[in-house]
Amino acid sequence: MRFHTRKWVKPEDLNPNGTLFGGRLLAWIDEEAALYAVIQLENNKVVTKYMSEINFMSSAKTGDIIEIGIEVVKFGKTSVVLNCEVRNKMTRETIITVDNLVLVNLDENGKPKPHGKTKVEYVKNRLT
Amino acid sequence: MRFHTRKWVKPEDLNPNGTLFGGRLLAWIDEEAALYAVIQLENNKVVTKYMSEINFMSSAKTGDIIEIGIEVVKFGKTSVVLNCEVRNKMTRETIITVDNLVLVNLDENGKPKPHGKTKVEYVKNRLT
Amino acid sequence: MRFHTRKWVKPEDLNPNGTLFGGRLLAWIDEEAALYAVIQLENNKVVTKYMSEINFMSSAKTGDIIEIGIEVVKFGKTSVVLNCEVRNKMTRETIITVDNLVLVNLDENGKPKPHGKTKVEYVKNRLT
Amino acid sequence: MRFHTRKWVKPEDLNPNGTLFGGRLLAWIDEEAALYAVIQLENNKVVTKYMSEINFMSSAKTGDIIEIGIEVVKFGKTSVVLNCEVRNKMTRETIITVDNLVLVNLDENGKPKPHGKTKVEYVKNRLT
Amino acid sequence: MRFHTRKWVKPEDLNPNGTLFGGRLLAWIDEEAALYAVIQLENNKVVTKYMSEINFMSSAKTGDIIEIGIEVVKFGKTSVVLNCEVRNKMTRETIITVDNLVLVNLDENGKPKPHGKTKVEYVKNRLT
Amino acid sequence: MRFHTRKWVKPEDLNPNGTLFGGRLLAWIDEEAALYAVIQLENNKVVTKYMSEINFMSSAKTGDIIEIGIEVVKFGKTSVVLNCEVRNKMTRETIITVDNLVLVNLDENGKPKPHGKTKVEYVKNRLT
Repeated sequence: MRFHTRKWVKPEDLNPNGTLFGGRLLAWIDEEAALYAVIQLENNKVVTKYMSEINFMSSAKTGDIIEIGIEVVKFGKTSVVLNCEVRNKMTRETIITVDNLVLVNLDENGKPKPHGKTKVEYVKNRLT
Repeated sequence: MRFHTRKWVKPEDLNPNGTLFGGRLLAWIDEEAALYAVIQLENNKVVTKYMSEINFMSSAKTGDIIEIGIEVVKFGKTSVVLNCEVRNKMTRETIITVDNLVLVNLDENGKPKPHGKTKVEYVKNRLT
Repeated sequence: MRFHTRKWVKPEDLNPNGTLFGGRLLAWIDEEAALYAVIQLENNKVVTKYMSEINFMSSAKTGDIIEIGIEVVKFGKTSVVLNCEVRNKMTRETIITVDNLVLVNLDENGKPKPHGKTKVEYVKNRLT
Repeated sequence: MRFHTRKWVKPEDLNPNGTLFGGRLLAWIDEEAALYAVIQLENNKVVTKYMSEINFMSSAKTGDIIEIGIEVVKFGKTSVVLNCEVRNKMTRETIITVDNLVLVNLDENGKPKPHGKTKVEYVKNRLT
Repeated sequence: MRFHTRKWVKPEDLNPNGTLFGGRLLAWIDEEAALYAVIQLENNKVVTKYMSEINFMSSAKTGDIIEIGIEVVKFGKTSVVLNCEVRNKMTRETIITVDNLVLVNLDENGKPKPHGKTKVEYVKNRLT
Repeated sequence: MRFHTRKWVKPEDLNPNGTLFGGRLLAWIDEEAALYAVIQLENNKVVTKYMSEINFMSSAKTGDIIEIGIEVVKFGKTSVVLNCEVRNKMTRETIITVDNLVLVNLDENGKPKPHGKTKVEYVKNRLT
């Protein structure tokens, strides 16, 4: 799994207990999954359709740095299934895992559209 | 199920497709579940531990009003299991459902603590 | 008065004194009044035109849960007058009251438009 | 009246009608009044206690620049009464006026404390 | 230099060290420069093109009031060069300075457009 | 240069021209530089002290994905100098570059403290 996006937990990200607000973390994961799918499917009209169960394994506090890892589980015809792990950058302790995030590729009218992708591609290779 | 909190979908809540950003919706749900648990368990140190699978059944657009419903599935010893549905206030169309959200009651040191609750209480009754 | 929307006061909602920032509370009230009017007038082009005097009777701190109550004072021809109270969910202590919020029903060009409503309706009844 | 703080209305500040969200504007006014009082009373523990009626006279759209003017109506023993006007910087059209905002000077325990001020002072003069 | 916009540093503006987050301050400066240019160039399609080096000379903490000063360095043909200083309102200590911010005047298609301005104008004079 | 953090440009990130607000981008860069320094210096009390000149070479629109690259220019005794480039993930077009960002390592009292680092380390190696 590749970990790209990192966040520095700031006071604005905390719940009243003084730890990272879970809702904020879920929003970060949803954004990361969406942008990963946009890159892979080469289509910027992509929506989250499904998330499998979510375990909050540990928390984070202000000043912690977290990183979000995504990998492809499989490519469907109009969708892509992703796997996500969020961990603490310094300790590498896992904060949350989501086994399956299903993102759907849409056409101009918001209907599912085949994307024709079958494996992960790197932008580097596309451009050469 | 009782629907309490309502949100007016504003431009700041949209994803780049111009529909309600799923991550924002998840954050709203997590906050609503947490505050519902705080009220029922009469303890303001409560954290989300688990969410079961999430289906994004429909979306919402700017100007739509959504409402978030929560009900108790069961009371554990140190936890409470909630069920959540978000729907469009005007059409009553379901936007998202989450069957089980597990919230844990914590003590001062952040350890699970028995809450002694076995059924839903209304603040009205507590105060009289 | 019916209390619907609830908020969990988080660090991002505080003023430098460490209590709920009054401006945040006013924004929450304005949103709640607007969406209440949208529901009642069945028109999503509604704007706040007037608020009567506002008394900040008590404050709230991080971790508190507040609830916002709205009721209709009267229906005008192109407007609706609402009454608002915000209170602490646990103690039921009043935080703020606003006797009159005037919301105006607009047409496509942003001009006041008669809404034809004379009493509170519940969505439940509209749909059956 | 002196107009200091200016805001550039951005998409994040809009309501679903595409005009400046009234709640955002009220939050800006409350912050401006509070910081004005902090400067005049030379005490950073100040809270808003009261706002007189608010008329939304015109709106603003994305890209507009608004400016917020504050002046002192009178100094009480533990409070200061301010007057506020928000207007469009380019057209000088008034957007909102609030005749009386009462801010209270607090001591360390959050109780009203006499501030000893009787007239507007400029920081420049204090420092020389 | 004229200091207009003021900000009250709130918990949401802090970095994990508990001082004003530098990124927030840069966003405030960029907004202030943009709106200053919009006013002077009488065109609301203006973008930041360049910022000279930035020294963070001191910081600010929650409850501090900062003020942002802007003045024109020179008018180019399609641009305007501004100078910015941010300081603590009470102590007048400098927090940050940026010698040159270049803002460009754009036409409808986003291309640089001559603005015809050669000196600072006050809105007051334009309207009389 | 390694590109880690990615952002999906959403409506809340736009300026009134409908393109990515420069101030938002600067805040993202400052956060990325700070967390990169925290990781390398193994100290979470780090502040931005200086940024060299900034060129806004191109912009981004809603739905674009940007990625932020950071590399170390050199390690000082109490500081680290970073180089930053932000580019469009799909086209790899450069949006902004900052040649030198100086971050300072602080002790508990906020004073510069030697960090003892002389080269980039990977967390993987530290943990084995």
